[in-house]
Amino acid sequence: MTRVVDMIERKRDGGLLDADDIRNLIAAYTRDEVPDYQMSALLMAIYLKGMTPAELAPWTDAMLRSGDVLDLSHIPGIKVDKHSTGGVGDKISLPLAPLVAACGVKVPMVSGRGLGHTGGTLDKLESIPGFSTQQTTERFIELVKDIGLGLIGQTAQIAPADKRIYALRDVTGTVSSIPLISSSIMSKKLAEGIDALVLDVKVGSGAFMTTIEDARILAKTMVGIGEKMGKKVVALLTNMDEPLGQAIGNALEVRESIEVLQNKGPADIRALTLELAHEMLRLGGKDPALAEKALADGSGLKKFAEIIEAQGGDPKVCEDLDRLPKAQFTEPLCAEKSGYIQAVDTKEVGIGALVLGAGREKKEDAIDPGVGLMLKKRVGDKIEAGEPLMIIHHNKTGLDAAKKRLLAAYKIGAEKPVQKPLILDRIASEN
Amino acid sequence: MTRVVDMIERKRDGGLLDADDIRNLIAAYTRDEVPDYQMSALLMAIYLKGMTPAELAPWTDAMLRSGDVLDLSHIPGIKVDKHSTGGVGDKISLPLAPLVAACGVKVPMVSGRGLGHTGGTLDKLESIPGFSTQQTTERFIELVKDIGLGLIGQTAQIAPADKRIYALRDVTGTVSSIPLISSSIMSKKLAEGIDALVLDVKVGSGAFMTTIEDARILAKTMVGIGEKMGKKVVALLTNMDEPLGQAIGNALEVRESIEVLQNKGPADIRALTLELAHEMLRLGGKDPALAEKALADGSGLKKFAEIIEAQGGDPKVCEDLDRLPKAQFTEPLCAEKSGYIQAVDTKEVGIGALVLGAGREKKEDAIDPGVGLMLKKRVGDKIEAGEPLMIIHHNKTGLDAAKKRLLAAYKIGAEKPVQKPLILDRIASEN
Repeated sequence: MTRVVDMIERKRDGGLLDADDIRNLIAAYTRDEVPDYQMSALLMAIYLKGMTPAELAPWTDAMLRSGDVLDLSHIPGIKVDKHSTGGVGDKISLPLAPLVAACGVKVPMVSGRGLGHTGGTLDKLESIPGFSTQQTTERFIELVKDIGLGLIGQTAQIAPADKRIYALRDVTGTVSSIPLISSSIMSKKLAEGIDALVLDVKVGSGAFMTTIEDARILAKTMVGIGEKMGKKVVALLTNMDEPLGQAIGNALEVRESIEVLQNKGPADIRALTLELAHEMLRLGGKDPALAEKALADGSGLKKFAEIIEAQGGDPKVCEDLDRLPKAQFTEPLCAEKSGYIQAVDTKEVGIGALVLGAGREKKEDAIDPGVGLMLKKRVGDKIEAGEPLMIIHHNKTGLDAAKKRLLAAYKIGAEKPVQKPLILDRIASEN
Repeated sequence: MTRVVDMIERKRDGGLLDADDIRNLIAAYTRDEVPDYQMSALLMAIYLKGMTPAELAPWTDAMLRSGDVLDLSHIPGIKVDKHSTGGVGDKISLPLAPLVAACGVKVPMVSGRGLGHTGGTLDKLESIPGFSTQQTTERFIELVKDIGLGLIGQTAQIAPADKRIYALRDVTGTVSSIPLISSSIMSKKLAEGIDALVLDVKVGSGAFMTTIEDARILAKTMVGIGEKMGKKVVALLTNMDEPLGQAIGNALEVRESIEVLQNKGPADIRALTLELAHEMLRLGGKDPALAEKALADGSGLKKFAEIIEAQGGDPKVCEDLDRLPKAQFTEPLCAEKSGYIQAVDTKEVGIGALVLGAGREKKEDAIDPGVGLMLKKRVGDKIEAGEPLMIIHHNKTGLDAAKKRLLAAYKIGAEKPVQKPLILDRIASEN
């Protein structure tokens, strides 16, 4: 067997790692036979020298096989999931999963928690009273089979190698590497036992990828991994130069998601939900037009209530939004000058919500489900000095710090800016 | 305080580390407050992105201050040491240190063990019956004061940060980095309390630096570190395209060293010993011509006998070479064809001696002091098929493997090769 130090040196010198060596390494690391200090040196070499598709496929495959790989083959139909690379106000999974399930495609969805400026689907779902994202593998499979979807967090059994490597990357400066990000996402998603995957790759000031070029490389890398592993993958590159929708903060985003399923809600959230639903339905062999129908006839909302109830939550939130947690106080944040909203530093808006308690800086931080922001203005809108940019929902924590950041995040000027389209590009696998 | 992960990211992105951050990091790592996995990621980033003189000075300084820094200021005179980057047959420290001490310059010499294809001064000295390289700091200082030199190994108290970082580099593919090699050498040497240092930077097929360009960068980097720390440093770049002298193997090299001090010995060993002695004497404020005198009048040999006795060894080896350990068997290795010796793969010759038991592959391997090689031919010499290239001194271990390697290491052909000079370049600090 090739020694780990030889693999590190090979990658360090810009060489290619052998597929079997990669498989052996990930397996040995999972069994605690390779120390973290060797893995972190290799991760830094990968960060700086990259990985080719021929290396990424066995790397991803070894990570997904480091734990349980769900077998959903006994459930009839095509199983399709969606993954977003993360943005501010990105609650799309909440209306999307039940909408697509209502149209007859099975959606086994394993999501993550928020970290840093981006929110996490699990935190949003858990703001629904009683909702539990911790389900056994057996119960998850049952939910997908009987209700058509399941909404859970990554279990210790799913891709444990990825879990350990991710934790190591976090403290060794090796997070923002396209091959490492791609293999991490794809190993978790492909361990769900899905047949196809839709990726929402965010681009802009609120995303991890700030340029369209980087986002396109990330999307192509992930689509390539899926393709090599026999899965159909479609990636949409979508705009994250401003927050999605109006609501930022966990319960506020659940509220907005339910409004979308009530065939209302902000235009951008509604449009992106439908775009992604069309892709998922096409991959699932269904008529894309079913998505609009399921919004109009309320079957998407009914499906959401069903899964909330099945996972221990209060389904009545779907009719009565006031059953969701709320912050004690609200306060408008007003513009200091008049003009057009020219740009938003979206990451800063995310951090503004975080300091109120909507997110977590460290993994162990607690979340306040009720706090957050309701935006009143979008890029391109006109505003007068003294008019509210947003309403801050707070519990007195971090208010001043948040206001300062939020005000500084908005650029107001005389020129009306050119608005970017919501969908910037589409990259699909060839199979 | 700057977080370690921020330092890793800065170096990863090609930035400069702050001097105080470097000092804090090395101190915290020595106190076990920074995990190995963060240090190894940083070392890989340094390997691939380098370090500037402004970073190397505090890095080296922090490593040397991680343990005891010897204070030899109460010993009158200028204290000068020599360090070689390591080669095959490089026993120069053995005749050099007593020779220079006999001329009145104090030589506090802390050496290392052999690893891989290169031998180590400590292993050679320990082949002298009774000789102990393990001396307390107090005794070492006493030896330098009373006898004029001391020959010991790195204690746990000298540069412990370097010791730990070196062990980590060994298993994380970060050994062959010029800034890391330079800072490792210089931190150990400057912790000895010396005023000046002569560096013998080896270049060629038996050295860590195989090109003159790399060796020059290494030499300049080390000279630069010394300069920034107020020490006078001279580096000689010397040829390691073939083994030094005739003897390779611990007791055989002691024998050859004593022959040099007896004013005999092979021409190249004698010449390099004198060149390095001249540099040390100049740095020590003495007349360089004293070196030749101390060889001729036997005072260098007398000084060697004195230090051997003071460190527990049998000083009679200086008169009676047969008191040194010997291998049980000797066997000539003969050329298979006639012609000129055109080139020697010197590293392979070193490994040939290693497999007989003269060196160690892993740190815990034991050494057989008597085994080794006595070379009969040098590059440029003519040889007939069937004539001995060398005499192998062995104890039946590894003989066949050694013969195969050694024979393959010699290139014999019709053309007489152009011989390289022994001294390739000289680089000195400006102070």
